[in-house]
Amino acid sequence: MLPNEQQDLQLRISKVCRAMQQADAEACLLVTNVNIFYLTGLIYTGFCYLTADGEIIHFVKSPQLQEVPNVVSIRKPEQISEVLTERNLPFPETLLLEIDVVPYSQIQRLIPLMGTPRILNASTLMRQVRSVKTPYEIAQIRRSAGRHAAVYATIPQLFRSGMTDVELQIEIERQMRLHGSVGNFRGYGANMEIFMGSLLVGDNAQQPSPFDFALGGGGTSPIAPLGANGTRIERGHAIMVDMAGNYGAWMTDMTRTFSVGKLPEQAYKAHQVSMDIHHKVQHAFAVGMSCAEVYQQAYTEAEKADLLPFFMGTKQQAKFVGHGLGLEINEPPVLTPRSNEMLVQNTVFALEPKFVIPSVGAVGIENTYLVTDNGLETITLFEENIIDLEE
Amino acid sequence: MLPNEQQDLQLRISKVCRAMQQADAEACLLVTNVNIFYLTGLIYTGFCYLTADGEIIHFVKSPQLQEVPNVVSIRKPEQISEVLTERNLPFPETLLLEIDVVPYSQIQRLIPLMGTPRILNASTLMRQVRSVKTPYEIAQIRRSAGRHAAVYATIPQLFRSGMTDVELQIEIERQMRLHGSVGNFRGYGANMEIFMGSLLVGDNAQQPSPFDFALGGGGTSPIAPLGANGTRIERGHAIMVDMAGNYGAWMTDMTRTFSVGKLPEQAYKAHQVSMDIHHKVQHAFAVGMSCAEVYQQAYTEAEKADLLPFFMGTKQQAKFVGHGLGLEINEPPVLTPRSNEMLVQNTVFALEPKFVIPSVGAVGIENTYLVTDNGLETITLFEENIIDLEE
Repeated sequence: MLPNEQQDLQLRISKVCRAMQQADAEACLLVTNVNIFYLTGLIYTGFCYLTADGEIIHFVKSPQLQEVPNVVSIRKPEQISEVLTERNLPFPETLLLEIDVVPYSQIQRLIPLMGTPRILNASTLMRQVRSVKTPYEIAQIRRSAGRHAAVYATIPQLFRSGMTDVELQIEIERQMRLHGSVGNFRGYGANMEIFMGSLLVGDNAQQPSPFDFALGGGGTSPIAPLGANGTRIERGHAIMVDMAGNYGAWMTDMTRTFSVGKLPEQAYKAHQVSMDIHHKVQHAFAVGMSCAEVYQQAYTEAEKADLLPFFMGTKQQAKFVGHGLGLEINEPPVLTPRSNEMLVQNTVFALEPKFVIPSVGAVGIENTYLVTDNGLETITLFEENIIDLEE
Repeated sequence: MLPNEQQDLQLRISKVCRAMQQADAEACLLVTNVNIFYLTGLIYTGFCYLTADGEIIHFVKSPQLQEVPNVVSIRKPEQISEVLTERNLPFPETLLLEIDVVPYSQIQRLIPLMGTPRILNASTLMRQVRSVKTPYEIAQIRRSAGRHAAVYATIPQLFRSGMTDVELQIEIERQMRLHGSVGNFRGYGANMEIFMGSLLVGDNAQQPSPFDFALGGGGTSPIAPLGANGTRIERGHAIMVDMAGNYGAWMTDMTRTFSVGKLPEQAYKAHQVSMDIHHKVQHAFAVGMSCAEVYQQAYTEAEKADLLPFFMGTKQQAKFVGHGLGLEINEPPVLTPRSNEMLVQNTVFALEPKFVIPSVGAVGIENTYLVTDNGLETITLFEENIIDLEE
């Protein structure tokens, strides 16, 4: 039976309330689409006001929300304090605001009208709460994984000899949309500009980009310097497909490697090391393991195989091998060399040990995992070996 | 001959410097991709520091920029003040920061390390400067318009009887990408979440959305409540196509209306009023005309035709009929009832008087115009009458 969405919303609200109580915050005023969606299952323009004891008021500019209780229509944020005053509700002495995302001028306007409370960081609190998933969220992630795999299964039929990376990506994008991709690919922070994912062929996989993804790629335009760059796909190229798993609000992350004909031995060896890293992490995993421990396992395997110069890039090497994901593609925790953050139960994260082989391309796989009390469950199920598109 | 890109960058820098001098700001520290791109033709992660007399330093985290002069590699913003100190450069007493976009916590960190200067708003200044285009920008916009029209010309071949709005949109998206669309569709502000544009059929055109576009549409998922919603396209439906003109950094905006078979008379009448509004605005236009005057012309025509209940939506009606555009799809000026802002030479703006006819859909056209000393030049050239997909 699928988890009930309304019950899950209550569960998510109570998780946030618990975190607010622990942070000694009386209230929280959310503005960003992703956090409002987390608490309401809706996107609206306005402010979601939540007190630590679970009272919620939706101050909504648009659209009109008929079916939601506790909605107040507003035109400007000053009406929030007017409504609190009218209803004899106390102004919070400590208020959570999304200060890592909401613009300076907007927060400067909100602070005095909320009675100049002490401000705590709602961006970090919400991201922390969201990193541990509820039953409904996990069900949605599983659903996305099924569609993600179904799209990757079409790739051998989409490939035609003589194609460029961009042309192949366009056909995959079309399949994604036909399988229900919502298109928009939600990332956290200003350095996550990406269209529908990444497809890297040959030496374009070595190109650095300004963005915080595991690999870069030159892109086709100075305004979008990431990913496929028009490289013609030739025999002996590896094609790394890391297209978005955005088949709903909650996402999956999955990378697979394809080839045109046979690749040099080093590419298969590196791909095998990537798969070995996945298996070793799964084997050694225990709930509560730290992100740094997982990173070190991956790094040690790459080092033992003499592949460190190719690990997570060549000219520019990413300093992480995985990350949480959910409503955004980059959520906490991040699997970095020094993160003590623990992988607790119901965390969903992607592990992506990748290698870039000069003149061949990027190899390796990425899976999305769920932390359970029995260890790691693989959410993204799809062939893991390199798939030869000529066969 | 095409305008020289490097000369144009110098022109853009000098335009910003002039605005800084007029604002009595000594320096400006830019963080956002769009404004860094405007001044450099590049996207990098870091800070672009520009003084009012035209000195520029690029404080870059990633990627390495070999070919650009005046680059300083940094890991954290504190190094900006270290570099200014080392080089005996004065700290600005008045500094422009993008306070309407950059998060509160980031600005809070920047202010003390820049010596706690007086802060002015770089978001509004840059948007004001960018609203008047340079020769290179205009050439790029013309180039986008050509591709935009070429894609719309394929629509009659893409349509198949029995399609849904989403299915037709997917085929248009594919053509857009094959014609060079960069995919990402850059808007300003948090309320501009859109994928590759809007395609509205039938009564979905009446659905409100939380976003600040001219029309809404219900979308296919609560996480993306905008645009096509899976409506099956039937005889008697109007199909409003307002897909992105993102064929490079500088964009175009163009809406055209298609039909399946004949529409009710009222739809043709309303479409004609939209075209008439365009012609009247073009005829009456003079450089320096205010946005409100253009809005009033549109409103008056809609009123004379007894079409106000359908003007810019039904259940939710947009309070503008057009907007500037360029690197972002929503730039100043905005054509609202009370805007005194003037349409000066080399402003590029879109005019989009639209009508929503219940049970039919949205009709009308949108063109992108350039303000010249001879009046308005139409940039988006493509058939303006309703195109019947059954013919």
